[in-house]
Amino acid sequence: MAKLKPHTLSGFMELLPAPQQQMERMMSVLRETYALYGFTPLDTPVIEDAQILLAKGGGETEKQIYRFQKGESDLALRFDLTVPLAKYVALNYGQLTFPFRRYQIGKVYRGERAQRGRFREFYQADIDIIGDGALDIINEAEIPAIIYRTFTRLGLKRFCIRVNNRKILNGFYAMMGLTDKSQDIMRTVDKLDKIGAEKVGEILTEDAGLSPEQAAEVLRFISITGDNAAVTAALEGYAGQNELFDQGLEELKTVTRYLTDFGVAAECFAVDLTIARGLDYYTGTVYETVMLDHPEVGSVCSGGRYDNLAEYYTDKKLPGVGISIGLTRLFYVLNEQKLLNPDLPTAPADVLVIPMSPQQRGYAIAAATRLRDLGIRTQLYSEQKKFKAKIAYAAKLGIPFALFLGGDEEAAGTITYKNLNLGEQNTADFDTAAAAIRAELSRLNQGSVIRE
Amino acid sequence: MAKLKPHTLSGFMELLPAPQQQMERMMSVLRETYALYGFTPLDTPVIEDAQILLAKGGGETEKQIYRFQKGESDLALRFDLTVPLAKYVALNYGQLTFPFRRYQIGKVYRGERAQRGRFREFYQADIDIIGDGALDIINEAEIPAIIYRTFTRLGLKRFCIRVNNRKILNGFYAMMGLTDKSQDIMRTVDKLDKIGAEKVGEILTEDAGLSPEQAAEVLRFISITGDNAAVTAALEGYAGQNELFDQGLEELKTVTRYLTDFGVAAECFAVDLTIARGLDYYTGTVYETVMLDHPEVGSVCSGGRYDNLAEYYTDKKLPGVGISIGLTRLFYVLNEQKLLNPDLPTAPADVLVIPMSPQQRGYAIAAATRLRDLGIRTQLYSEQKKFKAKIAYAAKLGIPFALFLGGDEEAAGTITYKNLNLGEQNTADFDTAAAAIRAELSRLNQGSVIRE
Repeated sequence: MAKLKPHTLSGFMELLPAPQQQMERMMSVLRETYALYGFTPLDTPVIEDAQILLAKGGGETEKQIYRFQKGESDLALRFDLTVPLAKYVALNYGQLTFPFRRYQIGKVYRGERAQRGRFREFYQADIDIIGDGALDIINEAEIPAIIYRTFTRLGLKRFCIRVNNRKILNGFYAMMGLTDKSQDIMRTVDKLDKIGAEKVGEILTEDAGLSPEQAAEVLRFISITGDNAAVTAALEGYAGQNELFDQGLEELKTVTRYLTDFGVAAECFAVDLTIARGLDYYTGTVYETVMLDHPEVGSVCSGGRYDNLAEYYTDKKLPGVGISIGLTRLFYVLNEQKLLNPDLPTAPADVLVIPMSPQQRGYAIAAATRLRDLGIRTQLYSEQKKFKAKIAYAAKLGIPFALFLGGDEEAAGTITYKNLNLGEQNTADFDTAAAAIRAELSRLNQGSVIRE
Repeated sequence: MAKLKPHTLSGFMELLPAPQQQMERMMSVLRETYALYGFTPLDTPVIEDAQILLAKGGGETEKQIYRFQKGESDLALRFDLTVPLAKYVALNYGQLTFPFRRYQIGKVYRGERAQRGRFREFYQADIDIIGDGALDIINEAEIPAIIYRTFTRLGLKRFCIRVNNRKILNGFYAMMGLTDKSQDIMRTVDKLDKIGAEKVGEILTEDAGLSPEQAAEVLRFISITGDNAAVTAALEGYAGQNELFDQGLEELKTVTRYLTDFGVAAECFAVDLTIARGLDYYTGTVYETVMLDHPEVGSVCSGGRYDNLAEYYTDKKLPGVGISIGLTRLFYVLNEQKLLNPDLPTAPADVLVIPMSPQQRGYAIAAATRLRDLGIRTQLYSEQKKFKAKIAYAAKLGIPFALFLGGDEEAAGTITYKNLNLGEQNTADFDTAAAAIRAELSRLNQGSVIRE
């Protein structure tokens, strides 16, 4: 029979077993941390009615979306987890309790041009808090605090959550009489990191039609830097001229104050006036998160405050705040940069049970069952191979312990166990052996997923 | 703005938060149990090259598959997790270690006619063990033993894993000179439960072209029932006439013997000669699993032994054995039949922390942080609402504990906590309060997901 060449589509991440284990650990940390803050898990379909997903329409979305017919239906794959959330909340409004806090970790699809490190299928890990009519400002501080705990638990240290407030930007543009150009300006300013101040100035005057003085003022404003106290002080200089600006400044001060209450280390968050989040969707606090040693990666976790989650589906006013970790991209970068902790076990099992002859299979099965009862991941090795091949199997997979069960062990009711990392071999009764194995496993699994 | 009516596609399960929590618990049990047996998690793309997925071609698959173009590419959504596994193993053969044991829990897609309880997007939860050239028979007993432990941990008691061996069936048909008709016969016999013996006999004579004597003999053979010893004894009566039959009988006896060694309760497995699994893919042991009180549901977990996992992609001989739980369907049935344990908490949080006035927000944040450090899922309630509304929020979500933190508590450094199920309220220092809350939470979370 002619064989088909096996391949995986380009732009689709498919990991070998060891890195997949690391990815699973990251997902566990995300699930657990999100749950610690009272977020409930959701799971919405990957396929939705194309009309629902494209309610907003326009832009890159429409070009990149995977859309197709099945029978009479016009279907599409979700391109983010926010639109499905909006649909879900509008659909189930009467059965939900607000504030509604949900997390979702799921795959989304964008038919982008394939390039290194860009994915067409990728995980997003989102948290959102949705209010019914109103939502307290404290939530805008809790969201980055959750990300802080998440990244810290993952083992990431060199990161910074950058915070800004859209009202400050919009208020500033209003003061300067540039409200009708503010979208263009923010889209341009968003590129500051990539193209530099000079180029931004050029675009602002040539394309957006600002006077050189206006462009200079915009650049001066977004260049306000320093620690949070210094930035806030500089912003106070603009206060009293525009209500929206003043409101935004008040919110920013409140959020930064609460961030400290939530225990977020000062070096892990910074007010940054260049952050606007390209989308017109955000109305208040906005976030981006960068890895300090890898600014070229861009933001690995972004989000913000919005006023109307589900405006395309309902008249209900549903303000919210949310943030999204680009998990697949983050994992890709961590792996490329060799930041995944190589000392954490990635083996499929903790113990390989090897009966020394077929006569000991019953004894081996019983031992394996008891280890599993203790929560120890145990594989029974039962292929007819030479002893050396069995040990090589454990070594190749990185399984830390092997159990050798022969006639002597069965007769005496003992276990011979070998720590394959250290080469140490012992024989003991089951409980002693299991306790020793557990102690070593807990030591091996102590570290965090990321090691900078 | 005109609103779009929010809706979810029919045939796509989308759960409310409380049932979703139960689904998550089920998935955790599956992940943990599979991992306990040394299976490594895999995550393959939802989209594959249509050519890869349809390598085998024909039948229902081609009709039901979601297939579409994107640019120049002919793409399709996976309709099971076996074909992607075959591709994965063929693609990564050189980097995998055999026997290769993997689990995958993922969504698959079949554009079936929509009907109650049938899904177009559904989770399968698969385990497979793939050998390189050979695979020991003991694996064919371990697979149902894993399912036994999984279902038992879920809390399911009234189920039966039915086991058969294709070699026995093929050997029997060979004895009777019916080899060329065996596929037709097995497909018909597979419907015995649904249409009854008489109708099966009719189809066998009228459509499959068997003589009435042959049809009677087939029906007699598949009617062999009783406990495993009785069935085996009856099968011995056919021994010595066909090599394949004898080999199959030997395998069946070995598998049932090991099943006992693995601790599978006798009432939870049964040799059943009517099980053939419609697919020509299986070559040895085959399994189906039924819920004894809900036979109408059909098999909730099926699989078997195959000789060539990846024959469309490689010349390597890769025999394996695997089984798949139809998780979405199983969950649907459990929910419909009210078998999900209603006493297990489904709230998004264990504790709702309520600062009695904005002055206590700092104290409340600190208390929430300490509870989270202990692994207690804690939500801070910070909306400006009446006290009654805050309590109603906790009650509506089923959050078991509320913390009331007022000026007195802050001044004394204490916590007032209320068990909302029992209505009991206490004030104590943090450690005492946290210990009491943890003890009650561990009691509340003790049960299994399913309660029959």
